[in-house]
Amino acid sequence: MEIRLESVAIAVDSDRISGTVLAPAARLPGVLFVHGWGGSQDHDLSRAREAAGLGCVCLTFDLRGHERNARQWETVSRAQNLRDLVAAYDWLVGQPNVDPAAIAVVGISYGGYLATILTTLRPVRWLALRSPALYRDEGWEAPKRQLHLATDLHAYRCVAIAAEDNRALRACADFRGDALVVESEFDEIVPHQVIENYLAALAKARSLTSRLLPGADHGLTRKDAQAAYQHALIQWLTEMVVGAREVAAQAGLERFRHGRRAKTHSPHADAAERK
Amino acid sequence: MEIRLESVAIAVDSDRISGTVLAPAARLPGVLFVHGWGGSQDHDLSRAREAAGLGCVCLTFDLRGHERNARQWETVSRAQNLRDLVAAYDWLVGQPNVDPAAIAVVGISYGGYLATILTTLRPVRWLALRSPALYRDEGWEAPKRQLHLATDLHAYRCVAIAAEDNRALRACADFRGDALVVESEFDEIVPHQVIENYLAALAKARSLTSRLLPGADHGLTRKDAQAAYQHALIQWLTEMVVGAREVAAQAGLERFRHGRRAKTHSPHADAAERK
Repeated sequence: MEIRLESVAIAVDSDRISGTVLAPAARLPGVLFVHGWGGSQDHDLSRAREAAGLGCVCLTFDLRGHERNARQWETVSRAQNLRDLVAAYDWLVGQPNVDPAAIAVVGISYGGYLATILTTLRPVRWLALRSPALYRDEGWEAPKRQLHLATDLHAYRCVAIAAEDNRALRACADFRGDALVVESEFDEIVPHQVIENYLAALAKARSLTSRLLPGADHGLTRKDAQAAYQHALIQWLTEMVVGAREVAAQAGLERFRHGRRAKTHSPHADAAERK
Repeated sequence: MEIRLESVAIAVDSDRISGTVLAPAARLPGVLFVHGWGGSQDHDLSRAREAAGLGCVCLTFDLRGHERNARQWETVSRAQNLRDLVAAYDWLVGQPNVDPAAIAVVGISYGGYLATILTTLRPVRWLALRSPALYRDEGWEAPKRQLHLATDLHAYRCVAIAAEDNRALRACADFRGDALVVESEFDEIVPHQVIENYLAALAKARSLTSRLLPGADHGLTRKDAQAAYQHALIQWLTEMVVGAREVAAQAGLERFRHGRRAKTHSPHADAAERK
């Protein structure tokens, strides 16, 4: 993400005045939203709206097995849904106004699980997970629905799991970007232990932010929980995106000032403003 | 300022998944910085850097009588410097990536005085004034330097002045955008009464934010005063710029959802995310 600095001359009367333009580069950060199992892209639209307000290009999409592809609900596999996510990522990064080095992925539940695995296949700078689900590695190509028929899925989510023993957790352990993990206090689907497993695996992230939504269930039935999630996500995205632009701008400004100092000496440059 | 919403189809395997893109329109808000008498555009570069980080195109420039045009220091008039400001404004608004309906002007001292008058000549949506100076209307074409030789300038700044009796205050009274006024607690050049005059005149602004920089002098000699100014300005700009984008995005989203509802009925649309 770059900031462009440029000296310009502006004509006024028969004179010319000197100006400096500072502008974000034409390419914007991209934010990819991945909904949960049984959800749809519609859930993410209001978050995407706010992220667009931060100056990001946002993409929401429906995983196969949902909405128009609901007929595949019983058969769609994790392998297929991961390919959906990769296709959506590649589409977003292929947009001419998107900066491929500034991609955020925001995943909910099953979507969070898929998002972590995406980080091993594509560059992800910022990773946000709300109530990320966890599954055994086995049955990767099997219908995702069947994973819920396995009676031990809940039991699997109630034990500490080392990062090396699970594909999503291994992905987290290898992740070097910035991570946000948001947990629901009363999550009936994703127990606290799963969140602990994710947080432990994310130990090498450049930064790690974890937030608890008080009183929230898994689906954020309560309006206040939805608002708290939106607030936590947007605060974090703001810090990441605006912060990255500022770092880029600071670096550009230092190069620019250095270049100017080499050319001119300005006696007024450090004087305080007067009257 | 607009947010673009668009439905897209993304190919994966032999299927297609549905997506929605939300992106800021290609045009960005513009921020024009006007330095004070005896200052230079260099003072504004670090604020401009932060504003660029918010996704704005920023322009700083040197008024005539300063820097490369310092030879005109003794002769330059307010009329000329206002033309400088108008020329800089027109240059900024003429950039293809700048949204002419989203222009902020940030003026310090004499630059703040000029900025208020600019609002009567060009559309300004957001107006930020730090320690705006005040002058009698007389001698508009006379050298600006001479205004300081008039012994009653300080006296003029110590009395309440009705908006209709001063060109800058009249401009404020007619201003319908959002305004920020930042005052230095111990300003040796611009007494508190001037700030009161400006605030009273800005009574019809859409929003008015005033901030006091504790312990600060006019030129912000102290580092903590500079930091406090930068913080106040950037907080306000963030609220204005990001807020305006969000309002635009919300409106776009409602139109988009309404259009989709008319076309399809989605049984999952309001279900909470599951597992």
